[in-house]
Amino acid sequence: MTSILKTMDRNPASSAKALVFYSEFDDPEEWREALQAELPDLDFRVAPDIGDPQTVGYVLAWRPPQGFFAPFENIKLVVNLGAGVDSLTGRDDLPEVPICRLSDPGMVNLMRSYVLFAVTRYARDMPDFEAAKRRGEWHYIHPTPLDKIKVGVLGLGALGSAVARSLADLGFDVHGWDILDKDVPGVRVESDPARWKPFLSELDIVVNMMPLTAGTRGLLDKEAFAAMKKGAKFVNASRGQVVDEEALLDALRTGQVGGATLDVFWEEPLPKDHPFWEMENVYITPHLASITVPQAAARDVAESIRRIEEGESPLHQINPKAGF
Amino acid sequence: MTSILKTMDRNPASSAKALVFYSEFDDPEEWREALQAELPDLDFRVAPDIGDPQTVGYVLAWRPPQGFFAPFENIKLVVNLGAGVDSLTGRDDLPEVPICRLSDPGMVNLMRSYVLFAVTRYARDMPDFEAAKRRGEWHYIHPTPLDKIKVGVLGLGALGSAVARSLADLGFDVHGWDILDKDVPGVRVESDPARWKPFLSELDIVVNMMPLTAGTRGLLDKEAFAAMKKGAKFVNASRGQVVDEEALLDALRTGQVGGATLDVFWEEPLPKDHPFWEMENVYITPHLASITVPQAAARDVAESIRRIEEGESPLHQINPKAGF
Repeated sequence: MTSILKTMDRNPASSAKALVFYSEFDDPEEWREALQAELPDLDFRVAPDIGDPQTVGYVLAWRPPQGFFAPFENIKLVVNLGAGVDSLTGRDDLPEVPICRLSDPGMVNLMRSYVLFAVTRYARDMPDFEAAKRRGEWHYIHPTPLDKIKVGVLGLGALGSAVARSLADLGFDVHGWDILDKDVPGVRVESDPARWKPFLSELDIVVNMMPLTAGTRGLLDKEAFAAMKKGAKFVNASRGQVVDEEALLDALRTGQVGGATLDVFWEEPLPKDHPFWEMENVYITPHLASITVPQAAARDVAESIRRIEEGESPLHQINPKAGF
Repeated sequence: MTSILKTMDRNPASSAKALVFYSEFDDPEEWREALQAELPDLDFRVAPDIGDPQTVGYVLAWRPPQGFFAPFENIKLVVNLGAGVDSLTGRDDLPEVPICRLSDPGMVNLMRSYVLFAVTRYARDMPDFEAAKRRGEWHYIHPTPLDKIKVGVLGLGALGSAVARSLADLGFDVHGWDILDKDVPGVRVESDPARWKPFLSELDIVVNMMPLTAGTRGLLDKEAFAAMKKGAKFVNASRGQVVDEEALLDALRTGQVGGATLDVFWEEPLPKDHPFWEMENVYITPHLASITVPQAAARDVAESIRRIEEGESPLHQINPKAGF
């Protein structure tokens, strides 16, 4: 906080009130419209047309290139255009101002729906029925009561804890893992590193919701998959790099991991020749488990700008050093 | 109620305390164990070994044959071994005693999970990603915010209203239909017959949760599918006979209905040569959206028996004339 306050002193609420938008993926016009509905006077600029950089107070960006922030000497706030902030952490070119992530109910609902879909597909034996359909066969399997199915949610941040709560509401036996001691209603949470493998060994379905940080990169490795129950199912809805993809491939080939639903990968788009494409027990979606809905997220961005103007803390601030 | 009370007078809480179990599908030993955990002295008999029929006070049955009840002159209660009571309505051989259905949280959770899965699969464009996977192609489709997706739940009984509430909790725009005026939090309910077609025309995804009754048999016919939005998706988790299956086939072939997830059919198991098996836009499961979990349901059956013994009304009583 000290460095932030110092920076605020150097850049008092000034005439630098323009916002620069940067994303190779998101539609700037949708964001312009959504933000100007909240802040009618907002000077909204789309990179590379940044105008006079001295007048830029705010940046709303998704994966800006190295050196992007250098021209903005009067910057007061950086908002990451998404929930996962790994592209704004572990880099040395960030201005010393508050860095925030987006969070909106629409994004939470999308993530909850994605994970409920993936977990329920396994819990209700749907891959077997999909195969039976292809064979033209009525193949009855007696359902397992949901409370007999142990689902583990790794990472209980804003999205992970919402997901864990939804799974518990639906009747699953939900276990959570986080490096911090979290309190999620209906979820048994563990955080003791010594319990990592025993924790994994009890789960029928493992859902990765961990942010990508120095501590989580490659954390789901050969040992982690080996620690899981034989045939456990795996869902990755956070970041591909949390997983050792070669180890996951091996575990899927031997059946140690019985199936995987993957929204994220080391390399995206997933290369044409990647073995996942051919694997019957892998379900692939193109990194869209949760996306930002401008209309909903713009309210919080506008509120953060208002707060900065009034010398208050913005919403959803992250710690770039911790990585989340 | 009058006829029920009269019957009770004729059969006062007597020595007729044995229970007869009948089902071609369910495991009697699971039920014996679950019920005797609640009522240790219960005399549990499995048809056809019914012993002395004069001593039978209770029947727990799934689709008993015509004439099944005739020997049980001292019967006090019939419990349908499932949620859908259509096999115990519209028949002329029922004793004049309370007829009840099963209801337990496990059953509700299974149904909620099934419908959430089916609806979310459509809402999140999963059939497109399944097809792209088969082609080995990364095919991005920008997600639609869930609150922009109108889901209609037809039939707001115990299961239908639980399903509608769960869909609303997840963020969908949920509309309910029932012949009675129901109050389901977060759900806009309609019941005016004049609104039937306009109601259907607004929905992106239509979920049938209606019981099979004289009034619902074949209700989802050619006209109903024609009234829907072009390309709407359809989920049937109640009874096959509520749908005119030929009309659904035609609508799926023309694309008027864009896809269907079907757990129930006119004829079950679905015959080998049925066209549904070959249709890319049909997802088939073998009638297991929701099943009875003996351990959970036995509590309510035992409670109903206790209540009958004390001259009180049992749980989950249905009206065989109305059909639900």
